[in-house]
Amino acid sequence: MSAHTDFVQASDKYAQGFTKGHLKAPPAKKLAIVTCMDARIDPAAHLGLQEGDAHIIRNAGGAAKDALRSLIISQRLLGTREIALFHHTDCGMLTFSSQHLHSILKSQTKVDPETIDKIDFLEFGDLEEAVKSDVKWLKENPLVLEETKVTGWVYEVETGKVRQVA
Amino acid sequence: MSAHTDFVQASDKYAQGFTKGHLKAPPAKKLAIVTCMDARIDPAAHLGLQEGDAHIIRNAGGAAKDALRSLIISQRLLGTREIALFHHTDCGMLTFSSQHLHSILKSQTKVDPETIDKIDFLEFGDLEEAVKSDVKWLKENPLVLEETKVTGWVYEVETGKVRQVA
Repeated sequence: MSAHTDFVQASDKYAQGFTKGHLKAPPAKKLAIVTCMDARIDPAAHLGLQEGDAHIIRNAGGAAKDALRSLIISQRLLGTREIALFHHTDCGMLTFSSQHLHSILKSQTKVDPETIDKIDFLEFGDLEEAVKSDVKWLKENPLVLEETKVTGWVYEVETGKVRQVA
Repeated sequence: MSAHTDFVQASDKYAQGFTKGHLKAPPAKKLAIVTCMDARIDPAAHLGLQEGDAHIIRNAGGAAKDALRSLIISQRLLGTREIALFHHTDCGMLTFSSQHLHSILKSQTKVDPETIDKIDFLEFGDLEEAVKSDVKWLKENPLVLEETKVTGWVYEVETGKVRQVA
């Protein structure tokens, strides 16, 4: 049984009590969240966000570089003016190197090794340093609006708490 | 007042009832969701997913290409074997062209125009066709595991419902 077979039933249940059909695209809080794809994280729940409040961009690690295309659209076309970037404890990105994943892909696929070697998986070695470095990168990026409020956070998967580190 | 000032309070409330600290990184449902960053979408809520169930990758549009780095990590290092890709009605990506956004960036920033012109914003012109095309791209991509179950969906921001289109 595939996981997606439950989607229609869950969605019908959600739709029965749905009162958000009037919302427009621009986020009410003018806020964009960047966080990890990690299955243990429910950003709306742990940050108290409702439908309509904020853009939520998620990728492996909560990497700022990987979020840039989305952030440009969020700011220039949909009016957000604040970015909160989260990484989290026990993140997979702390446990491997791009080189290691390149060698897995070379052994498991027929893709040309040069193409594989070009993929930067954006792993990191120190959690708080990675948050600070991503916040700095966003603040200095000329494609990000200069007036943007950028903050950096750690989410603790063990406790459900957040702490601000930048 | 910045939006992030409420995070610690919301997070403390969430942490008080927190019972998920034992969960490990690999998603229980071996499932990766790709969906849009749109503020109106709460994928966990509308798909009935709990913390620990699925990787959730979100970017402007729910673009497969932009999710590839994350999907490789999700599959090769964290064991997911199914991808469900969502786009949604009233998506911002239906309303502009990369060329239009390039000209906004050229007028609003000092970034070199050649660098700007290289950014593909991955907009689309037809919602269902874009879902089908992204699903096809994933199914044919040699960096995605061949045995992956890939499905494509539309989420309706007006009703809270989903429908499968691929």
